[in-house]
Amino acid sequence: MTGQTRYAMIGGGEGAFIGPVHRVAAAIAGNCRLVAGALSSDPERARRSGEAVGIAQDRSYGSYAELLQRERVLPAEDRAEFIAIVTPNHVHAPAAIAALEAGFPVLIDKPLTDTLAAALDLQAVALKTGGLVGVTHTYTGYPMVRQARALIAQGDLGAVRRVSVRYTQGWLAKAEDASGKQAEWRIDPARSGLGGAFGDIGTHAFNLVEFITGETMTRIAADIRAAVPGRQLDDDGGAMFHLSGGGRGTLVASQICTGDANGLEISVWCEEAGVHWRQEEPGRLRVARRGAPEQIWVPGTDCAWLDASALAQVRLPSGHPEGYLEAFANIYRDFADAVRGNVSLHPAYASLDDGLAGMRFIKAAYESSAQGSAWINLNGDIA
Amino acid sequence: MTGQTRYAMIGGGEGAFIGPVHRVAAAIAGNCRLVAGALSSDPERARRSGEAVGIAQDRSYGSYAELLQRERVLPAEDRAEFIAIVTPNHVHAPAAIAALEAGFPVLIDKPLTDTLAAALDLQAVALKTGGLVGVTHTYTGYPMVRQARALIAQGDLGAVRRVSVRYTQGWLAKAEDASGKQAEWRIDPARSGLGGAFGDIGTHAFNLVEFITGETMTRIAADIRAAVPGRQLDDDGGAMFHLSGGGRGTLVASQICTGDANGLEISVWCEEAGVHWRQEEPGRLRVARRGAPEQIWVPGTDCAWLDASALAQVRLPSGHPEGYLEAFANIYRDFADAVRGNVSLHPAYASLDDGLAGMRFIKAAYESSAQGSAWINLNGDIA
Amino acid sequence: MTGQTRYAMIGGGEGAFIGPVHRVAAAIAGNCRLVAGALSSDPERARRSGEAVGIAQDRSYGSYAELLQRERVLPAEDRAEFIAIVTPNHVHAPAAIAALEAGFPVLIDKPLTDTLAAALDLQAVALKTGGLVGVTHTYTGYPMVRQARALIAQGDLGAVRRVSVRYTQGWLAKAEDASGKQAEWRIDPARSGLGGAFGDIGTHAFNLVEFITGETMTRIAADIRAAVPGRQLDDDGGAMFHLSGGGRGTLVASQICTGDANGLEISVWCEEAGVHWRQEEPGRLRVARRGAPEQIWVPGTDCAWLDASALAQVRLPSGHPEGYLEAFANIYRDFADAVRGNVSLHPAYASLDDGLAGMRFIKAAYESSAQGSAWINLNGDIA
Amino acid sequence: MTGQTRYAMIGGGEGAFIGPVHRVAAAIAGNCRLVAGALSSDPERARRSGEAVGIAQDRSYGSYAELLQRERVLPAEDRAEFIAIVTPNHVHAPAAIAALEAGFPVLIDKPLTDTLAAALDLQAVALKTGGLVGVTHTYTGYPMVRQARALIAQGDLGAVRRVSVRYTQGWLAKAEDASGKQAEWRIDPARSGLGGAFGDIGTHAFNLVEFITGETMTRIAADIRAAVPGRQLDDDGGAMFHLSGGGRGTLVASQICTGDANGLEISVWCEEAGVHWRQEEPGRLRVARRGAPEQIWVPGTDCAWLDASALAQVRLPSGHPEGYLEAFANIYRDFADAVRGNVSLHPAYASLDDGLAGMRFIKAAYESSAQGSAWINLNGDIA
Repeated sequence: MTGQTRYAMIGGGEGAFIGPVHRVAAAIAGNCRLVAGALSSDPERARRSGEAVGIAQDRSYGSYAELLQRERVLPAEDRAEFIAIVTPNHVHAPAAIAALEAGFPVLIDKPLTDTLAAALDLQAVALKTGGLVGVTHTYTGYPMVRQARALIAQGDLGAVRRVSVRYTQGWLAKAEDASGKQAEWRIDPARSGLGGAFGDIGTHAFNLVEFITGETMTRIAADIRAAVPGRQLDDDGGAMFHLSGGGRGTLVASQICTGDANGLEISVWCEEAGVHWRQEEPGRLRVARRGAPEQIWVPGTDCAWLDASALAQVRLPSGHPEGYLEAFANIYRDFADAVRGNVSLHPAYASLDDGLAGMRFIKAAYESSAQGSAWINLNGDIA
Repeated sequence: MTGQTRYAMIGGGEGAFIGPVHRVAAAIAGNCRLVAGALSSDPERARRSGEAVGIAQDRSYGSYAELLQRERVLPAEDRAEFIAIVTPNHVHAPAAIAALEAGFPVLIDKPLTDTLAAALDLQAVALKTGGLVGVTHTYTGYPMVRQARALIAQGDLGAVRRVSVRYTQGWLAKAEDASGKQAEWRIDPARSGLGGAFGDIGTHAFNLVEFITGETMTRIAADIRAAVPGRQLDDDGGAMFHLSGGGRGTLVASQICTGDANGLEISVWCEEAGVHWRQEEPGRLRVARRGAPEQIWVPGTDCAWLDASALAQVRLPSGHPEGYLEAFANIYRDFADAVRGNVSLHPAYASLDDGLAGMRFIKAAYESSAQGSAWINLNGDIA
Repeated sequence: MTGQTRYAMIGGGEGAFIGPVHRVAAAIAGNCRLVAGALSSDPERARRSGEAVGIAQDRSYGSYAELLQRERVLPAEDRAEFIAIVTPNHVHAPAAIAALEAGFPVLIDKPLTDTLAAALDLQAVALKTGGLVGVTHTYTGYPMVRQARALIAQGDLGAVRRVSVRYTQGWLAKAEDASGKQAEWRIDPARSGLGGAFGDIGTHAFNLVEFITGETMTRIAADIRAAVPGRQLDDDGGAMFHLSGGGRGTLVASQICTGDANGLEISVWCEEAGVHWRQEEPGRLRVARRGAPEQIWVPGTDCAWLDASALAQVRLPSGHPEGYLEAFANIYRDFADAVRGNVSLHPAYASLDDGLAGMRFIKAAYESSAQGSAWINLNGDIA
Repeated sequence: MTGQTRYAMIGGGEGAFIGPVHRVAAAIAGNCRLVAGALSSDPERARRSGEAVGIAQDRSYGSYAELLQRERVLPAEDRAEFIAIVTPNHVHAPAAIAALEAGFPVLIDKPLTDTLAAALDLQAVALKTGGLVGVTHTYTGYPMVRQARALIAQGDLGAVRRVSVRYTQGWLAKAEDASGKQAEWRIDPARSGLGGAFGDIGTHAFNLVEFITGETMTRIAADIRAAVPGRQLDDDGGAMFHLSGGGRGTLVASQICTGDANGLEISVWCEEAGVHWRQEEPGRLRVARRGAPEQIWVPGTDCAWLDASALAQVRLPSGHPEGYLEAFANIYRDFADAVRGNVSLHPAYASLDDGLAGMRFIKAAYESSAQGSAWINLNGDIA
């Protein structure tokens, strides 16, 4: 339908994890439609993958360069309106820069890039071209995460004083786990960039802290390592941090936590209440106020008491569970709307600045760990 | 893409709840595509609704009769391959019969029809035409429901001895709740048919019992009422029942349970283990065996120990919550496959026989209640 | 200390389950002290058991008759002030009647007696002698059960409309489970009385319904059986019931629910909120109100917002779990206080009338089941 | 009864929190009996408190010095067999030293003393006298904590790789909360010693880590502060640590976490499984193994599959919740047994060495925090 924003995808071909997630998310969103793709760096695989996902043969390209070159000259009513980039990390920056220079807005899977330098290059191009850049931090697409942010932003919970955030997975717990398309590039510095677990999932944890508290992380002291012998990139780490408003916190990011699946959870203790959320039970926000029974907030189109920013991200009445794909869909919906000029007040996608902050977080965390857990400012100076 | 099965929808226009659920489910399924519709019994509304959901103008029809008449003469490679029926209950049978007679397979929202007589008419036509009929009982699309069924079917849990199933909602708790498009027809006997809460959600509970246990409900003693003054249809009831294998159970179906959202939950106690599932936490199957710590089974593409029938319904690695829409998507996926001739071993959609059993359940439950909770066989004779 | 009320115990010797529970409960209560006992019907065992629990040798008696005869003539400042009866059911009535006639208040483990006739005899003696009779229904000693009752009694939750109560255990799931001192008498009609599972645990479920709702159960339709071949008494059953205020409910009492430990749980749906409690997580009362986030009420001496009747039963600050023994201790504390003339407004022990109602419940349930689940009034007439 | 070990209590008079907990715990334990006390440093209050708890008037003393002097000369069959010390922290060492020198074993509430120097003095006296010293670390008395330790000790879970432990409370969240007998001394350096929150509850978290992992904490980097303006002692802090076996972890100890009650929780990820426990739900040990459904272990005298060290600490069948007081009772039971010469294989009380390790933990944590979170070895050297 003409109401649907057309998009092209770079990366996400056969065997990928996050590519299909993006495509299903876009389908749930309902306001965007996949029209072109360069789904693999291998041209034959790219075309085969394109066919499998319903991209017309003449718009399934063998490289992102070809995609950009050919799409930009299509009639305005046909050509892709934005580019989704779901490649391994080291391709994010070159592809995004090329897309921006070709005039396309880009929606990039996290982390923004492989290195901070690449991220700054991307920022420069974005500023120069004025092109829209979004980052898919998934978890900010959950309604209850938005409700948490809103409750704290409203101010009556008081200042944030302590945060505990953990992102623990077990899928790289052993040396033999690092096979398969997903694992392979994540543990390869050339493709993954600076960060292992701290880059891959630590950035999600970091983003969640800043998103929910509405504050910035100012400094960090980290203790990061590769726990599994022979790994080049970190797979396990902890950190302490300070927030701009005076609060303090701890952060764990680990992919060797056997038995954990996708264990992202956060507790934010404010002066008047604690706010608690777990990704694996996303429709349940625990709010424990001082001097009153604890509350459980749930999403639902019938929950009129939710903040507008949360309510806008819900599709179904309460009691009908929505999950990871729906959270992702909210990101696509808001980004597709923004591309058409309808920028929502609290878009579900993360901004370029958010993505850059994530890169600074990774860099500071590794620097701290390398310096015996010294406190490092997120702007790079020693604290 | 050519791999996608084309479908048309009857009902589900502006303001409907279940119509959009079907369409998003189909989008998630990925193997089917909405190409035509008669989305409202009001022609103008039907066309407007069709446009909003991306149906081409010339395939958005003003009535289901028109839809069937026009689609059947389209070229085979264009015309809808099956019809989804998401109208109020009283339209299910006539629309489905007409579709079957026009040569279309039909996927019908539950309950199958408004009355048992209508269901038997539909059955006769299905037998005559040989057309495929599926019913969307949603909850059988959840992977952990399928895992529960598989665990019991494997036999090492022993015979089913007791079942407790409850489907409790609060959205019709008060007289003033019965406004709005969804509530309105559900409490109107002319459109909803015999059943109020027992028809609307009791049939889900019934279907879940038979699906998970693999047995049939043989007799029932029910105590059903309209609790809110002035209602013509029941909104609250309880029942006791017997199963074909000798087990016994209790069932609650109520839409006046204030504070409950979509509270479907079931416990099945077998000789060697109890199996417990709640729709609001669908990715968590509790299995409590005799003489061992309790187990929590979860879905995930990485959970190789799941039964094949459950694993086939999962899209994401463990820890990435899937919900109601994904369960529904599994139904669409399996039905669209079946229409193309690929019938899966354990399809996620309910069969015509399942739908008919549901109608017999409703009828027996109301008869029992009318007769002072006398035991009634589900085939209609007094027990 | 002189502040402690002295008590004697009948039953509860070596190998018993509930005797030690009573004694530890009394120790936790702090206001009562065990001074005498006839702990077994076997005199030698009685004396040996008495010594093991610290009863002075000269006050460890070989029969309850001897105990009553000897204690009644002791000086007032020495003799037992009340008698706890923890024998198998068939001894409750004769022992309690003898104790009342000897001038002692009695605290009796549930169910009150083995038969309704015996219960009525006991009532007659209690009325004649004016002696205090208490029944230990354990679960009414939990603070959150009392909070539930208080919330409903306050009236702003509106009328009770539906109740679901289940008491499911698995410890008699198989024929071979019925050995051991506890199981043995419970499945023997001569010692257990009319009821198997419905008597042993169904009465707890019944009592909990009446306690929390503040209403009386007026009629019942039940479906009870011995599921394990060869058993004389029921081990599994379900029921539907009506309440005096117009609400309706379902009840399950079963001891063959494999994998369940002590699964007592209740949901009470009122017009404005649902109230939910589970014995295995006793410090957590879920209150789901219409149009607001759900609340979790917890016990704690620091939870000033609790009802006085709940707060009075808590020993520790919130977050310090209290359990089954502490609930039982509340019963002892209140009964010992009452014996000394300090009757609390809402005592934690059940009254003789409550105990009698329990016997009427058992009788009505079995009559209904024997009559094809016909509705039976709890006063004994066919409904 | 003669089987009961006699004990005297120092501290724990009117208004105290932990004194009554000790006394009820001893009553539940069943094998010990309070015979003497110096319950307050105010002689009149001491006598009044003694009377209230049933201590004979002539054994209620006005000071601990008087208590020790008078009790030591009583006949062996009458005098207290051990001394429980439940005073504010600064009295622990002098009272315990005096008691040991008078020939009494001592059971001391945690933390062991107010300063490390005092703890070392105490150790010296204990070594000299050979007197038994136990510390009440409460949480090691929970059966599921012991089961966790046993599962890890058995070795098939593999090496510990990451630990997350948090002890978060909200009862000192605001300046106005620091009134009342309990709060008052805890925030006063003269009576509480070096530690605020890290001493009061951080030591529990530390002890739990060492107890469950069976390893020692080797170094720590901490970030501790007084978050509430005007406080002299810390009320909030986080830390990172290393374990002797190569594992790493994070620790939070805070008393300003609004909405939290007694939020002690620990996750230990080993190579083959994660082990998770929360004090507020103590009868539920989550064990998530690689490649299998998660397990929930529960306590119960009927759970024969539990480790003997866990089973020995359970009083009731599964499903009958035991809590904080029962955990404490296990400590008293084992200590009273040990005083009589029956030292259990895995006693529930912490040893003097455990207590000393706790003091080293406090000291190292504060030193680290004062040095910009530098890594500090727990033996005191800079790492």
